Amino acid sequence: MKNYSSLSMRLENNSLKVILQTRLPHEEVWCDATHPRDLIPLIKKLDVRGAPLIGVAAALSLGFSAGRMDWSEFSTWAEKLAEARPTAVNLKAAVDRVMLAAQDGHGEWQSLVAHEAEKFLHEDVDLCNRLANRGAALIKDGEGILTHCNAGALATAGVGTALGVICRAHEQGKRIHVYVDETRPLLQGARLTAWELEKLKIPYTLICDNMAAALMQSGKVQRIFTGADRIAANGDSANKIGTYGVAVLAKYHNIPFYIVAPRTTVDEKCATGAGIPIEEREADEVRAGKSPTNAKVWNPAFDVTPRALISELIVE
Amino acid sequence: MKNYSSLSMRLENNSLKVILQTRLPHEEVWCDATHPRDLIPLIKKLDVRGAPLIGVAAALSLGFSAGRMDWSEFSTWAEKLAEARPTAVNLKAAVDRVMLAAQDGHGEWQSLVAHEAEKFLHEDVDLCNRLANRGAALIKDGEGILTHCNAGALATAGVGTALGVICRAHEQGKRIHVYVDETRPLLQGARLTAWELEKLKIPYTLICDNMAAALMQSGKVQRIFTGADRIAANGDSANKIGTYGVAVLAKYHNIPFYIVAPRTTVDEKCATGAGIPIEEREADEVRAGKSPTNAKVWNPAFDVTPRALISELIVE
Repeated sequence: MKNYSSLSMRLENNSLKVILQTRLPHEEVWCDATHPRDLIPLIKKLDVRGAPLIGVAAALSLGFSAGRMDWSEFSTWAEKLAEARPTAVNLKAAVDRVMLAAQDGHGEWQSLVAHEAEKFLHEDVDLCNRLANRGAALIKDGEGILTHCNAGALATAGVGTALGVICRAHEQGKRIHVYVDETRPLLQGARLTAWELEKLKIPYTLICDNMAAALMQSGKVQRIFTGADRIAANGDSANKIGTYGVAVLAKYHNIPFYIVAPRTTVDEKCATGAGIPIEEREADEVRAGKSPTNAKVWNPAFDVTPRALISELIVE
Repeated sequence: MKNYSSLSMRLENNSLKVILQTRLPHEEVWCDATHPRDLIPLIKKLDVRGAPLIGVAAALSLGFSAGRMDWSEFSTWAEKLAEARPTAVNLKAAVDRVMLAAQDGHGEWQSLVAHEAEKFLHEDVDLCNRLANRGAALIKDGEGILTHCNAGALATAGVGTALGVICRAHEQGKRIHVYVDETRPLLQGARLTAWELEKLKIPYTLICDNMAAALMQSGKVQRIFTGADRIAANGDSANKIGTYGVAVLAKYHNIPFYIVAPRTTVDEKCATGAGIPIEEREADEVRAGKSPTNAKVWNPAFDVTPRALISELIVE
């Protein structure tokens, strides 16, 4: 495969390297993820995160592995990879697509898989560009833009989805100010989105999630963009926990709320948001050593925003 | 003075002891605060916090000191105590009240001061009880109750305000489940409210602030109680940052939202919430070592909930 590099990943000398996102923003550490054995724990630990990036990384890992395994070993790893995170439909879709190209291990399956993986990567890059152009057209000079979690270059193989839109508007010379929800418990906003905006020199202000309402009340937010992890056939969208609350607050304050996501995020098998499984994560992520040691915790990773609260679904 | 003890303070053998709130929930350290010299730094460091508690502790410290000092020394310490937190209106009011009872050091001033301090304490305890009874009457068996920040026994000399209501409902034998917003950036919910509920063996679940919307969507919350730091004449209420967002979400989900506070919280000089000054705090409270080091931050300590979003203001 050809070399390629972005803020989140590097393809070089037929190997896949990813930046360890749990170490950002203070350390920029790159790690080999060529083999699914290495990629799976990175996905589980959220070192590789963001639905599109997970899909691309999975496809690339399989693409590289195909030439180094027999069919039985390969298909076992593919299965394990598909199960690394339950809510991210892109992961399953990516693995399915590669497996379809692999033709049950017949014929030239190794090169077909490698080819499909590379195609998948470049589709994601193109896709981000198209989403960014479409979303950026909505942003006017001087606007304040709120985003939640990280749907940027760290979440995709390209410029990102929601944050790609924002960065594109900045590239176009629009004077915007970005408000970044810190996004508890894992602080993807404070750690990752803020890091990307620093890298790109885009003006931003970090807030705690519970400050978004007062910020909207103050009139400083004109538009809100977030990504999505899975979109039901009716448009209900699962995204990082807290997105639904932001959408309700946006409605109350009459601020347009957009979801930006690739078409692969749409799961036609889910009729409505009620059918989207919500992963619950470890209590210690929330306790963080601050609460009573055995405090009972509810820690859903995602919530579902009904279509009615979404001003526009920006899907290519 | 008679002995008295609560989760936050102990009166025994003519001495005042307070629990160090910055050490909670992991360590329960009690410290002598009988002399204003010892109480002042504890207030400054937020080891003694919550507007009503600060006022009561100041009055008691003066009450004990009266019998051990001459008038000149006493009035010097009273002045220093009043300035320990310049923004805390209750502290100034408490010291003023004790000084008024002291009659400029004439006659039996020592015993008058001690008597006034003890009266002050019992007024706060009674007040909490009345608020608790009134609020608890609203709660039905089996309900899920959400609260934000800490308005409990750690913030008053009695059972608390918003959390006092919840604890009273539990005492009454109602099977309730409490949901606790962690309350970023200083985590008063995760650290203090959760600790109080553990102590009282009241079932609770800790959530991140951005999970409140999904929790309400899930149907698990039937009622919401919070305290207030200042209430304008028209009922608009300033409370810990995040309260306004919770109130908007409550409205959207058709869940009753109550503010519980003593009458002294009402500031008749503020016509509406727009007149309430909002303190902005240090950026590092939000950054917390997680975001890029120089990230620009907006960190308001409070927000204002309009009266229209408050189902009932529970004031004695």
